[in-house]
Amino acid sequence: MIKTPREFLNQLATVLSAEQLELRVEVLLENSRDFGQLVGEPIMPLAVVYPGTVDDVQNIMRLAYEHHMPVISRGAGTGVSGGVHVTGECIVLNLMRMNRILEVRPDDEVAVVEPGVINYDLNLAVADHGLMYAPDPASYKMSTIGGNIATNAGGLRCAKYGVTRESVLAVDVVLSDGRLIHVGRNTFKGVAGYDLTAMFTGSEGTLGVIVRAVVRLRYLPVDERDISMLFPSLEAAVLGVQRIARVRVQPAILELLDSPTIRILDEQYATNYAVHGGAMLLVRLDGYGSEKEESVLRETFANQEVILSASGAGDATALIEMRRTSRGDTKDDAYRMGEDVAVPKSKMTGYVRELREIAYQHNVDVRVIAHAGDGNLHPTFSVEPGSGIDPLARLSKALEGSIRLAIEMGGTITGEHGVGLIKREWLGWEQAPDVLSLQREIKALFDPKNILNPGKAF
Amino acid sequence: MIKTPREFLNQLATVLSAEQLELRVEVLLENSRDFGQLVGEPIMPLAVVYPGTVDDVQNIMRLAYEHHMPVISRGAGTGVSGGVHVTGECIVLNLMRMNRILEVRPDDEVAVVEPGVINYDLNLAVADHGLMYAPDPASYKMSTIGGNIATNAGGLRCAKYGVTRESVLAVDVVLSDGRLIHVGRNTFKGVAGYDLTAMFTGSEGTLGVIVRAVVRLRYLPVDERDISMLFPSLEAAVLGVQRIARVRVQPAILELLDSPTIRILDEQYATNYAVHGGAMLLVRLDGYGSEKEESVLRETFANQEVILSASGAGDATALIEMRRTSRGDTKDDAYRMGEDVAVPKSKMTGYVRELREIAYQHNVDVRVIAHAGDGNLHPTFSVEPGSGIDPLARLSKALEGSIRLAIEMGGTITGEHGVGLIKREWLGWEQAPDVLSLQREIKALFDPKNILNPGKAF
Repeated sequence: MIKTPREFLNQLATVLSAEQLELRVEVLLENSRDFGQLVGEPIMPLAVVYPGTVDDVQNIMRLAYEHHMPVISRGAGTGVSGGVHVTGECIVLNLMRMNRILEVRPDDEVAVVEPGVINYDLNLAVADHGLMYAPDPASYKMSTIGGNIATNAGGLRCAKYGVTRESVLAVDVVLSDGRLIHVGRNTFKGVAGYDLTAMFTGSEGTLGVIVRAVVRLRYLPVDERDISMLFPSLEAAVLGVQRIARVRVQPAILELLDSPTIRILDEQYATNYAVHGGAMLLVRLDGYGSEKEESVLRETFANQEVILSASGAGDATALIEMRRTSRGDTKDDAYRMGEDVAVPKSKMTGYVRELREIAYQHNVDVRVIAHAGDGNLHPTFSVEPGSGIDPLARLSKALEGSIRLAIEMGGTITGEHGVGLIKREWLGWEQAPDVLSLQREIKALFDPKNILNPGKAF
Repeated sequence: MIKTPREFLNQLATVLSAEQLELRVEVLLENSRDFGQLVGEPIMPLAVVYPGTVDDVQNIMRLAYEHHMPVISRGAGTGVSGGVHVTGECIVLNLMRMNRILEVRPDDEVAVVEPGVINYDLNLAVADHGLMYAPDPASYKMSTIGGNIATNAGGLRCAKYGVTRESVLAVDVVLSDGRLIHVGRNTFKGVAGYDLTAMFTGSEGTLGVIVRAVVRLRYLPVDERDISMLFPSLEAAVLGVQRIARVRVQPAILELLDSPTIRILDEQYATNYAVHGGAMLLVRLDGYGSEKEESVLRETFANQEVILSASGAGDATALIEMRRTSRGDTKDDAYRMGEDVAVPKSKMTGYVRELREIAYQHNVDVRVIAHAGDGNLHPTFSVEPGSGIDPLARLSKALEGSIRLAIEMGGTITGEHGVGLIKREWLGWEQAPDVLSLQREIKALFDPKNILNPGKAF
């Protein structure tokens, strides 16, 4: 039976302690959105609840289910697709206090964590064992493993180590009606039943609440070598990516920066890269092969118009750190919008070329960084607020053009950020009605009352 | 409307050419099973159909849907879990003639293939570009990419390169009612919508018919170094696996052979390894790091009771090839049954120790090989047909004990072979009723008439 919001909150208060049920406006506001663009005013949730245990989550979900109350699960809220934006009457289930690393089993190369564990903290905890948790979204110092799983987060290192999905072995999930299920396995391999773990990974809080995860760890590289490579042009840099592949070098990180991005770096850090080149690759080689790979790369690019950083010099490492924080964990605003498409690797040059044409047509600025090893591009479009006629409409048209272009080139509307709220309208450009309706049916199966982050992900 | 089988076959004949519709008994027999154990006499399908195009598959499925006719899709039938055993009235959809490599795009590092392409043939075709398709089940010279995807096949190289799931980017699938859908993406990264590609991967023909796949390719290693390591005991060999991990060496292949297995090798190949050791690791190091990794391994195991093969000598390579063919593509029979559990890596010694105890209790023989890098063990149980009281019952009890033990140790009933028909009864030991019922609901959603390989996978 559906009661009033007031009655629902009263019932919540009976299963949670006072500190677990937040009604203060500043907390509601903080939890009303993620780093994605917000159209209009933020909408407040009825309450923010902070479960401390799996039991708490089950109790909350049982009540929500009984009352048909929408629930938005979230971690740090560093997503950029509006995946946890509040869009109507709901409560926010904030999992940040379920932040214990339950087990590190170095010989099994796995860790068992609660969803609120910060990615960085997990990496600190396992480093002593010579291990790492590989997925490293730009937000890794703030974002949670639970959020990373919910969005199937990517990052820089996935060029070599794969995205979050490749590091998640099992999850415990509280379903919409409060039931707790365990899916997946504690082992690296396992093919019993359908791959529900992959189904939950990247499901953006629409199928269940992840309350525990078994994640795979990788060996902390024995050696890392960073090289920056300054190319005369973007075309040359993308050809550089192909040359690296052709000599069969698999960088751990392979980032591409276009010239507007380099100019911004130069401004922020008082460097002068832009004078010397039109595009940059940032390469990290790691592991036992890194020394040999470095010499192969240096040979491959010798006698070409490419400026490589000196071996062992710290500037390439500094650039990679700059790159990490230069986008992804900065909030977009109405006049600056970041994108996240992926295209087949051979299409990167053509994509960026046409992207610039689109920006030119709509009189907006565009700069591009890319996880070039994966063909995952992050264009950022911007307009000056007062410039020309209807700058926001121009921005939005350019953005739309960039998405259509990615699809035309055989790519996807989202390489690693997720569909969330913001990319929903474009999903139909990429996926056919039959595929969308199968997903809606799966959603209905897991969440028959449509209370788990309704209206998100598709 | 449901017609008689005769009428159904007549209708099939209207959409297929004569060579595509097989009724000859020897063909029916050949297609009535896979390499898994068969209890009782083989059951003949009504017909074997050989689609040549996606259209053919759609036409076949439309008719089957209309007539409620069960359809078992299959490739080479090298599976060992009875996944394509015929269990009742049905037709077999044999995809071996849809065997074209549609595209190799070296710069994108992907290939687009029909389901009947042989794993080995794909590897031959891409090797010229310095690329490989990494998943390599023991059956790779005979088995198809479609079958590999349907079972989420593993293999030796997945220690480093992951299982089939990690190499499948997109699939075209004909649904039970004949509709064609495309799921996944052409790019390495992509998070639009639920991960239906992973859902189809390993679904053992129960959700749809895979008619085309976009697979990811990896760099063919520039160097491979094979080392055999003979340890005094199984315990020492498993500790060896941990030592390799602790020096952060990631072998491409890391196989464990116990002493009964070594004795069999000695018999078959006239070698004398068993005299010198009680367990063996076969290590393949590949890529730019292999030279350094080899010297690290040799240092790590110097001054220990471990006999390493000489650097560059061919014997370790020969042993790896022997290992490849020593199990997996041999048919089990009533008196010899292979298993396929996985346990957390640290549990391997304990597992094998208790396994021997189980074998001893039931008076059966057991030998073990393992993909030790993944904790994926393949015990083989056998009894002499005439030995003692009820040898088959003893064998079956030992087998059951080995499965229970794997689950007790936090493992899985199937690391890479799939549930098929044979492991169905054990799935409930590993997965809770809620998880099983979610899977049944997903199955019903994709296959409402339960005509796609009914009674398999769970």
